[in-house]
Amino acid sequence: MDNLKVIFHINEPARWQRVLLNANNFVKDVGQENIDAEIVANGDAVTAYFEIEDASSSSEKLNENLYEKMNKLSKMGIRFAACRNALRMHSLDEQLLPPFVTAVPAGITEIAKKQAEGYAYIKP
Amino acid sequence: MDNLKVIFHINEPARWQRVLLNANNFVKDVGQENIDAEIVANGDAVTAYFEIEDASSSSEKLNENLYEKMNKLSKMGIRFAACRNALRMHSLDEQLLPPFVTAVPAGITEIAKKQAEGYAYIKP
Amino acid sequence: MDNLKVIFHINEPARWQRVLLNANNFVKDVGQENIDAEIVANGDAVTAYFEIEDASSSSEKLNENLYEKMNKLSKMGIRFAACRNALRMHSLDEQLLPPFVTAVPAGITEIAKKQAEGYAYIKP
Repeated sequence: MDNLKVIFHINEPARWQRVLLNANNFVKDVGQENIDAEIVANGDAVTAYFEIEDASSSSEKLNENLYEKMNKLSKMGIRFAACRNALRMHSLDEQLLPPFVTAVPAGITEIAKKQAEGYAYIKP
Repeated sequence: MDNLKVIFHINEPARWQRVLLNANNFVKDVGQENIDAEIVANGDAVTAYFEIEDASSSSEKLNENLYEKMNKLSKMGIRFAACRNALRMHSLDEQLLPPFVTAVPAGITEIAKKQAEGYAYIKP
Repeated sequence: MDNLKVIFHINEPARWQRVLLNANNFVKDVGQENIDAEIVANGDAVTAYFEIEDASSSSEKLNENLYEKMNKLSKMGIRFAACRNALRMHSLDEQLLPPFVTAVPAGITEIAKKQAEGYAYIKP
């Protein structure tokens, strides 16, 4: 079987836990060696890459263990991308992104190109 | 014309009426004999498969006639799937799913595989 | 490179600014001559095509400059579609749609067919 190629799209911070859970279930179900998956964050969702240290003070606990979950998934082969337009709009410095996150010129272009290359699109 | 192949993805209970309306409009527009469509529920959306009997007491009437609508669509050829990870997370017994719903190991995998087979993805 | 083909799907009025921003970033990033893009509105999202004149009175300013942004994007080659089922459900007269918007029989069918033709799907 060819690898299952998937793009997860997230543009709302509140959906991170759901995205990470979905990605984790996907890896567990199909096996790390059989997937080619990337999580593309644009819009307000990119802020979560920088709020990780504030996780413990989040009243909603939405960011609880966010960094650990992302980091673990990245070690299982899931790639993370951040839209540069969104970073600029939120005055965020891409040099300060977690090491496992790659900045892309435009999240929408990344998603469109990957689908043209045969990736499935999932919006958790 | 080949059949139009579509996966509808739902992961939030409040969106069921919208998904079912979209699927119904799709069948009416294209014709039952020309479609190959599946509704894949994961996350909290799987709970709706089990709350059907409580529909009449819903203050929001969100579930009003939910079972009837699902059942009617299933008779028009629309398939329904439930993510087994989500069922487990909500302690729901897949033996008690409505007869027209199939449990799949992981909703995300189902959606990814179907897209790899040429299904369009729609998130109502 | 072939043109990048994208369908943007919107079914909630509150997401228009996001959709238009995403489409605008996409055109700026890839170039007007390299894209083939359509925004398909169904559900409640079609109402925004008719509420444009009320924009200045919107307390949330969600519709601020909505018409101008849509019009500008249409001049950059982005197409706009409205689901006829949704128009009917909201008792909206398709004759009164802005000149750059085309009514389609069913938004879901439009989205499914375009994906079958190789368009990427994005739900902002």
